[in-house]
Order: sequence, then structure tokens, then C-alpha cells
Amino acid sequence: MGAHYAGRKEKIKTPTVHEIATLVDGRIEGNENTPVIGIAPIDQAREGFLAFIAQAKYDSHLQSSPAAAIFVRPDSPPSKQTCLIRVDNPYLAFVRVAREIFAIGEPQRYGVHSSAQIAETAQIASGLSIGVNSTIEEDTVIGEQCTIGNNSTISKAAHLGKGCQIANNVHIAHGVILGDEVIVQSGAVIGSDGFGYVKDGDIYYKIPHLGTVILEDKVEIGANVTIDRGTFGETRLKKGTKLDNLIHIAHNVIIGENTVIAAQSGISGSTEIGESVIIAGQVGFVGHIKIGARTTFCAQAGVTKSIPAGKIVSGYPAKDHARAKREEAVIRQGPELLKRVRKIEKFLKKNVADFDGE
Amino acid sequence: MGAHYAGRKEKIKTPTVHEIATLVDGRIEGNENTPVIGIAPIDQAREGFLAFIAQAKYDSHLQSSPAAAIFVRPDSPPSKQTCLIRVDNPYLAFVRVAREIFAIGEPQRYGVHSSAQIAETAQIASGLSIGVNSTIEEDTVIGEQCTIGNNSTISKAAHLGKGCQIANNVHIAHGVILGDEVIVQSGAVIGSDGFGYVKDGDIYYKIPHLGTVILEDKVEIGANVTIDRGTFGETRLKKGTKLDNLIHIAHNVIIGENTVIAAQSGISGSTEIGESVIIAGQVGFVGHIKIGARTTFCAQAGVTKSIPAGKIVSGYPAKDHARAKREEAVIRQGPELLKRVRKIEKFLKKNVADFDGE
Amino acid sequence: MGAHYAGRKEKIKTPTVHEIATLVDGRIEGNENTPVIGIAPIDQAREGFLAFIAQAKYDSHLQSSPAAAIFVRPDSPPSKQTCLIRVDNPYLAFVRVAREIFAIGEPQRYGVHSSAQIAETAQIASGLSIGVNSTIEEDTVIGEQCTIGNNSTISKAAHLGKGCQIANNVHIAHGVILGDEVIVQSGAVIGSDGFGYVKDGDIYYKIPHLGTVILEDKVEIGANVTIDRGTFGETRLKKGTKLDNLIHIAHNVIIGENTVIAAQSGISGSTEIGESVIIAGQVGFVGHIKIGARTTFCAQAGVTKSIPAGKIVSGYPAKDHARAKREEAVIRQGPELLKRVRKIEKFLKKNVADFDGE
Repeated sequence: MGAHYAGRKEKIKTPTVHEIATLVDGRIEGNENTPVIGIAPIDQAREGFLAFIAQAKYDSHLQSSPAAAIFVRPDSPPSKQTCLIRVDNPYLAFVRVAREIFAIGEPQRYGVHSSAQIAETAQIASGLSIGVNSTIEEDTVIGEQCTIGNNSTISKAAHLGKGCQIANNVHIAHGVILGDEVIVQSGAVIGSDGFGYVKDGDIYYKIPHLGTVILEDKVEIGANVTIDRGTFGETRLKKGTKLDNLIHIAHNVIIGENTVIAAQSGISGSTEIGESVIIAGQVGFVGHIKIGARTTFCAQAGVTKSIPAGKIVSGYPAKDHARAKREEAVIRQGPELLKRVRKIEKFLKKNVADFDGE
Repeated sequence: MGAHYAGRKEKIKTPTVHEIATLVDGRIEGNENTPVIGIAPIDQAREGFLAFIAQAKYDSHLQSSPAAAIFVRPDSPPSKQTCLIRVDNPYLAFVRVAREIFAIGEPQRYGVHSSAQIAETAQIASGLSIGVNSTIEEDTVIGEQCTIGNNSTISKAAHLGKGCQIANNVHIAHGVILGDEVIVQSGAVIGSDGFGYVKDGDIYYKIPHLGTVILEDKVEIGANVTIDRGTFGETRLKKGTKLDNLIHIAHNVIIGENTVIAAQSGISGSTEIGESVIIAGQVGFVGHIKIGARTTFCAQAGVTKSIPAGKIVSGYPAKDHARAKREEAVIRQGPELLKRVRKIEKFLKKNVADFDGE
Repeated sequence: MGAHYAGRKEKIKTPTVHEIATLVDGRIEGNENTPVIGIAPIDQAREGFLAFIAQAKYDSHLQSSPAAAIFVRPDSPPSKQTCLIRVDNPYLAFVRVAREIFAIGEPQRYGVHSSAQIAETAQIASGLSIGVNSTIEEDTVIGEQCTIGNNSTISKAAHLGKGCQIANNVHIAHGVILGDEVIVQSGAVIGSDGFGYVKDGDIYYKIPHLGTVILEDKVEIGANVTIDRGTFGETRLKKGTKLDNLIHIAHNVIIGENTVIAAQSGISGSTEIGESVIIAGQVGFVGHIKIGARTTFCAQAGVTKSIPAGKIVSGYPAKDHARAKREEAVIRQGPELLKRVRKIEKFLKKNVADFDGE
């Protein structure tokens, strides 16, 4: 697997510790001219590599790693053998170097493949990469430096900002609007019709979905996610919100900035989620409720009503997490509690003539 | 987003209130010759548009909307300024007009794209639309007026009735049968192999899946849904049943007519669901059980046994909803209940010499 | 639907009971020269067909089926009319015959379709089938007898062993490694980026995912499953593990041999699952825990901590299943328990002057 760690932008031949420390404003302990040939986690870093240690429990590697350099915390112990670069957040510094110097995680750019179908009325910026068998339909607008994978479709009148990354087998439906630097992983469907019907007797009639979906700048969407368009108006994910895989977002949902949602959670129609909310995996929300900013939802919570800002919530029906833990503690001793009540009843029956309990 | 509301079939130039009211059998209050140039929700309707008011709480719009006409209830108050059309169900009337006069929600028809791969033995009716890079395999039958999107496959010997709408990146697997007017949204997989294995020691051997999937008339399937084929025999969704996104239907499941299932629910193998059942989101059913007609399942219910007709069910393991609410009420006061029992024990110990509770 | 049961390999013209019994080491009761023209479940088997009876409750068919031959248990009753083949496991024998003699469930092989895009640096073995509009990117290695469907992509430097079956609209991402005889159903995404971010203030920065996914021999992956690549290092599913549809496997998860996971379950980052584990549908696991071998997880369990080998676990938070059932039994009588405590309090208040309970 070593090859995965060795990619490197051409513009810097082999970076030195000095160049790396400069990028992240780090303080060097050791030889700043040490060359760095690749990056790796601390337990896999070979000679010449850069690693990081964010947690004290891994500090023992400081005396044994063959790495050329290690990002460490301001308060990490010194190393007798390895060049250290002290930074406030070693993990963040490592990630920046991985992206900006070693170019790992950047999409490859191939240009527009000859098999791609691009409508005459599509407005296509420069620096694009469009993969095999993808389709850019009429009246679309695709911003600079976008990357679109294979077998994906950007449907009629959809707009993509600059630097969006659309993977394979994705459907960006008609009229959907993406800001800049939006990432959509493979198999996601953005702008499917919502689950809306009018019932007449036993029969359900499909409501035409006239709205759209808006994904603001730096929103990221996991694999096989589905986001329905508004019935009227819009479904909107605000700036910087991140979705894991297999999530369902129903019609007319609004999600605030910098909210993160883990895999397999689902949000029903017209619910509004605040900013900087944290939602764990397999959480469900009913429709038409409001969730305050900076709330946290534990895994598998079933949220049946609006929740004010700042709460931590768990369980079904979802409630204050501390209270839920106390209630669970009682459930855990339920069988014993039942015995204690029986014992009291038996005692009263035996010792107090007229108690007829149970 | 205004353009989304303005589509209009060519055959009626600009409909009048009279033409619209005639379609839905409505009673006009105002000038029946008023022209209608578009449709919109009441709070977004501009001059010349048609809107609707289904709930009394929106009646204040009657005196302030610039709309040309509004669908209202038989008992709605009059308007001094706007032409009203009284109907029994204003929302339903609006939806009919959106579809039948303004043609919103209808798939666009492009004909058969030159990149589509169509087997020589496929029987293709007239009026079809087949998108970019889709494949119609051998021995398929595709009915009139079907619309198939991009990068989808209709596999060997599958049958589609008339007017089916298949979106992008869909796989209709071999031998699967669709009735008329079936809708399948993007990314859905209809006819995957079921999760069936024979175990021999520790090893699982795949059971060949010899059955198929049948989706009857007017069934609708959400984005990224998976429906497995029968092990032997069939998996069948009966007429008018509607599925939201990311739902899993296992092998040999039978679902009755006009049942609706919300996102991320899953039904295990060989379970039978009755007609007109309502299943909320993230509900799970074990295999080999029978669910009666007109039952309702609250979100996240975990259904472990058969349920008779007409029940409302919630929780894990799923039980009568009214009972579940009573049990939850006790759980909510669990910590206090525990204290009360402790208090009784303490009292008895102190005041009745021979009580040795706990 | 009869045609589904009649497929047959060309190399054996019409197999006899003798040929079939030889394959599975069965003992014949009846005429070993009886020809077998097809296979079907016992209640659908027509004249000339082979069926099986695994459970005693279906033994009545022994006297009424028109089948040519039936696989039965060693202790099944005799039949007056039908040729029987006694085997230890009638279902397993039936499945072997379906696959090895009647060739049902085997992927069809078409060769490489002219529309497939194959990079010059791809190493392609013989006997391949590559469907319409699929893409084999540079530096890939594809083993003998692999079958790849339509609109799928095998990304840069991915490796497939021998006899893998990849369905439609699948994305095998860059650097992903598949062993031999791996099956991936339609819409699955193998090697998406994990859900990993570094937070700086309110803003989340994407961590580049430098690792990969390894699916060992005979792993099977259901439709629309998502498996994320390791952040560093790998996500690995060991030999013989089987996944149902719509499952989420996060970055750096390790799953042991011969583990089976039902639909819509999800496993969070860096969790390790042992071998021969059974996970029912809609189960969720938090990250960074260890699950012992041969554990069983009931449907919808929410697993919040490590579980030792051999346990059966259910509920949220997941606990020993027998204990969970006892606790549920107390919950079920919660409302009555509450009444009993009230009755005791009332009695003590009335009869013992100084009890001030509640």
C-alpha cells in the first residue's frame, strides 16, 4: 500500500522540513533542511517520511520512529533522534500538508472525455474534467475547475459553482443549484421528487414537485445519499454542511451552516435544522419541526418534536440525554424493582390484615 | 426560481378560469374569463397566477394576494378582489391543474438518443424516450410512452407497461415485470439477488435467485431503493403502492394495494403487508410475518410479529401505540418511581420491625 | 414465470437422476435413469422437474407431486410414486444442482462490449465480460472470468481477482483490491472517501483519505451498499463475508471471515467485527469498538460498546438479549406496576399515620 502515501505535486521537487513548517507556521526542533519524501501515519512512517502525533498516548513513537519529521503538540516531549515540528493542531497541519504539498485527495483532471454528451446550450467554464459517458444537459452552467466523474448526469438548467467535485453515477437533477467547492460522492441523487401525494379515497396521486435543491459552498454529500427537491420552493443545505453516506433529506428541509450528519440518518419533509448541529448515525427526524443550533443527537435517536439550541438528545422518543441515561438506569434494574414491590405487597398482606394489594 | 412555475402545454394557449374550473368541477366566484398564466403556492403567486388555500389559517391571503384566481374550500370566506374557484379539495384540484393543464411534473420526451444500446430482439413501442447511454437488453418489452433516463439498464426479458418513467442510473434486472405508469427514481435497483445463503459448517453458499419482481400499475419507487427478486417465485408490489427513498424490500415480500412506505424502512424476506398500510420512516419488519390492511406504523418501529388489520403500532418491539405511550409515560417517571419504592422500604424497615426489604 | 426454471447448461443434454445424485453424493430410491428437465420449488414442480423437501411439514407433497425426483432428508418417509434422492441437506443439494447442472444464477458472458472504455495500461485477463459503457481505468488489473455489467467503473489501480461479478452502476474506486469470486451488486460504491474532518473553530476541513478497501475472496456485497476507504490504511472485509443491501461500512472497519450482515445496518469508523458474526437488519455500531466472534445482533440493536465473543445482543443501548427480554417484560407491565406502588402508598398513608409517601 506504500504507493498511496508517496504522491507529490511536481512544483515542489522534494520538500524540506523548512518548507513544510513554513506552510503551517510550525516551530522546528532539528535540522530544517531534512528532505521529506512522503507522508504516513506514525506507525507506518518509513525513513524519510513525515508523520504526526496528536495524542500523548502515542508519544512513545518519538523515540523509535524512523520518520524524517513529526508534527507534535506544543507540550510534546522532545525527541533525541527525529526532527520535530511543533504546531497547535498536529492533525490539521498534517492534513494541510497532505493536500497542499503532497496533493493527496485531489481529484485527477483528464479534460473532457470524448464520450461525454454536452448540450449546445450548456455553459461550460475552462479547466473542467468530465468523465466517460457523462451527460451535461441543456441550459446548465458549470463553473471553473469542476470535476465530473463517469456515467453522471447534470440535468437541464442545473448550476454548478467553481471547483465542484461530482463522482460517478451521480444524478444532479434539473434546476438544482450547487455553490462553489461542493463535493458529491458516487451514487448520490440530488433533486429527486419528494414523497408527496394527495389522497382521494384510497388512491394516492403524485404531487408534482415544482421546487429545487440548493447546496451552498463547501457542502459535501456522501455516497448513495438522496436529497429530494422542494414541493414548492427549495430544499437547502447551507455553507459547509457535511453529509455521510446513505442519508435521506426530504423535500423542503433546511439545514444550517457547518452541520454534520453521520450515515443512514433521515430528515422528514419541511424540518429545519440549525447551524453547527451534530447528528450521529441512523437518527430520524419527523417532519415540520425546528432544531436549534449546536444541538447534538446520539445514534439512532428518534426525534418527534422541536428541540431548543444547545441540547444533547438521545433515545426514542428523543429526550435530554442525561435524563435518558437516568431512565435507562431504572430500566436496567426493572426486574429487581418488580421483585421489591412484590415483596412489599406480600409483607403488607401477611402483616396488615386489610391490605389487598395486587 | 420563477421559471419552474411557468411551464404550460401547447395545446391550451392561455387557460381561462372557466377552462380550469371545468376540469375540476369547481364553482366560480368572479370573472370566468380571467386568463391564468402560471401556478404557484399562495405566498409566491404573482399577478395572473393560480394558487390554492386548503387550510383556514391561510385565509388572510384572500384579501391580499395578487393572484388571478385561487382554489378554495366550499366554506372559505369570499374575496373582494380575487376570482375564487370553490372545490371540495383545493390541493387536489391544484395538483390536477398543474399536471393536466400546465404539464408540470411530466417527463420531457426526447426520443431515443443515438447512444442508447437497444438489442435487436427488444420489442420497443412508439412514443418512447430513451436517454444517453442507456441499455435495453434482449427480449425486453417496452410499452408505449415510456421514458427512460440516462445510464440505466433494462435487463434481459424485463417487461415495462405503458407510460413508465425510469430515471437515471437505474437497473431493472432480468425478467422483472412493471405494469403501466410505474415510476422508478434515480439509482434504484429492481431485481437484485436476495440475501439468501445455505450454511455448511462456517461457510455460506449463495442460493441462486430464480424468481423475479413484479411492480403493478402506478407503483412508484424512490431514489436508491433496492428491491430483491424472489428466491423462487416473486416479490410483488401491488397497484398504487408508493415507496420513498432508500427503502429495502427483501426477496418474496408481498405488499398490498395503495400502501405507502416512508424513507429508509426495510422489509425482510417473505413478509406480507396488507393494503392501504401506512409505514413511516426507518421502520423495520422481520421476515415471514403478515401485516393486516390499514395498519399504521410509527417511525423507527421494529416489527417482530404479525399485526392484525387496523392497528396503530410503534416502538421496539412494536406494540399497540396507545399502550406504548402509556408505557413510555411510566419510563419517563422511572427515576421518581424508584425513589418512591425506596421510601416505602425505608419506612417499613424503620416502623415495622421485621420488614427486611432490600 | 416458468421459463425461469428451465435454463440448462449445454454440456449435459438432459441429466438423469443418476447424474444428479452422483454430484451430491445422494442415495437413490427409484429409477436412476429418470430424466430431469428442470428444477422448481416443491409446490411449483411440474412433470419431469426436480424439487426438494427440507422440512417435515412439506412431506405431504411426497405422495402428490408430479415431480420426476425430489431431494429428501435421510429420515423422510418413502414415496410410492416419485423417485427420491436422500441427502443430508436437501436444500444445499438443490442449490448445487441449480448452479452446477442447470447453470441458474450464473452471470451471462457477452465478451467485451464495443462501448466499454479500457485504458491502455489496464491488465485484462481472458474470458472477461465487460458491459455497455463501463470504464476500466489505467493501471487496473482484472482477473480471469470476471464479469462487469453496464455503466460501472473500475477506477485507477484497482485490482480484481478471478471470477468476480460486478453488476451495473457500480463504482470500484481507485486502489481498491478485490480477491477471487467477489460479487458486487448494482449501485454499490466501494472505496468512497470516509466521513473524516478536522474541525477548526466552526469549520470542518476534509481529511484526505489515503487508504483503501480490501474485499477478500468470496465476499458478497448487496445493492447500493457503501464502503468507505481507510483514512490511512485499509477497510477490510475478510473471506466469505456477505453483506445485504443498503449497508454502510465506514473507514477502517475490519470484518472477520464468514460474517453476515442484513440490510440497512451500519458500522462506524475503525470498529472491528469478529468472524462468524450474525448481524440482523438496521443494526448500528459506534466507532472504535471490538465485537467478538460468533456474536449475534438482533434487528435495530444500537451497539455502544465492545461485546465479547458468543453473546446474543439486542436493544438500545444493546445488551444481553435474555436480560433485555426480562427488562422489556417489566416495561410491558409498567402502568400496572405504577398503580401497585400508588396503592401501597395510599394504604400506608391511610393506615399508618406518619407515612407521607409521594
